[in-house]
Amino acid sequence: MDPFEEPASTREEILAAAYQALCEHGYADLTMEKIGAEFDKSVSLVYHHYDDKDDLVLSCLEFILEAFEEDFTGGVAAPEQRLEEFVGWVCAPSMEEDHREFMQLLLELRTHAGQDAEYRDHFTRSDDVFHAHLVDILEAGIESGTFEACDVDSVASTVQTLLVGVMLRRSTHDDETDWLPAVRTELERYLDRSLGR
Amino acid sequence: MDPFEEPASTREEILAAAYQALCEHGYADLTMEKIGAEFDKSVSLVYHHYDDKDDLVLSCLEFILEAFEEDFTGGVAAPEQRLEEFVGWVCAPSMEEDHREFMQLLLELRTHAGQDAEYRDHFTRSDDVFHAHLVDILEAGIESGTFEACDVDSVASTVQTLLVGVMLRRSTHDDETDWLPAVRTELERYLDRSLGR
Repeated sequence: MDPFEEPASTREEILAAAYQALCEHGYADLTMEKIGAEFDKSVSLVYHHYDDKDDLVLSCLEFILEAFEEDFTGGVAAPEQRLEEFVGWVCAPSMEEDHREFMQLLLELRTHAGQDAEYRDHFTRSDDVFHAHLVDILEAGIESGTFEACDVDSVASTVQTLLVGVMLRRSTHDDETDWLPAVRTELERYLDRSLGR
Repeated sequence: MDPFEEPASTREEILAAAYQALCEHGYADLTMEKIGAEFDKSVSLVYHHYDDKDDLVLSCLEFILEAFEEDFTGGVAAPEQRLEEFVGWVCAPSMEEDHREFMQLLLELRTHAGQDAEYRDHFTRSDDVFHAHLVDILEAGIESGTFEACDVDSVASTVQTLLVGVMLRRSTHDDETDWLPAVRTELERYLDRSLGR
């Protein structure tokens, strides 16, 4: 999923440029000028739409989150498959470079949330969106008889927290083959036992 | 444990000053001058011992890790209790301000490891040290009959990854009471099942 594939307005074009600049320079080294350099039109147009770097980065995060939310609506037709996709997105043994870059960027921005209430608000909301999606998947599976009844909130929170840990360790560890396959196997066993799979 | 409580040399005094400055300013805003300001003696003495900010921060991380390592040696007398301490250090419902600050700092430096091979080397080594300690605890428990035999490497990797996720979410989430108690309960249940407790 690339939410910036077809920008529908000048604002979206600016967000796409901000995302490019973020991937290239990281948050700490990002400036409005560097965002402007990724944007075909003028830097003053960027300033016309966004007050400063944080206004723009937060709008960019919000835009990405909304694309996920849109993707999540409309019910869960194949809960087992959706659960595997969810886990696989974070735990896949190999990863495209832009996927890895996106994870790295999310981590840098999430760490920044430790010192900045606006970013903390965003990631609290983001965690809530992914939690609700996981709960939807589990409830759809229980509804259809694919999964056994369980405490869906607890299972969803645990899966989500483990996946956050996997993302952080993957980005900052030299050799993930040491531990990633074992953690994924343990996660599958946890799901098997919790969901009676 | 405070590894900077009784500095035994000028180098250790400088590391203690660097740690203070890191807690106060964070990594991104840290400069050698700010470290010097926390140090009773001269800034030039800091430069005499350390080339630059990263040399100093990496030495500081290494010093902290060595204090943990020292604490970990000498066998595991009470594996059940050590395991609870390990989990409790990250999952405790309330946390002193300096404990929370220390976690936040580790996260900022770990995220920086995404872009810097020297920091990545450090956190790879750090993960290895904590993994080995968890394995020691589990093996001591199996040896003494407190725990049932299990795949200690897999269980240790999973616990460690979940705890990394807890640390990151606690630092960047507005309200941890939403999810933390549930995740801790699920972790205890996972350990109960894995270790036959």
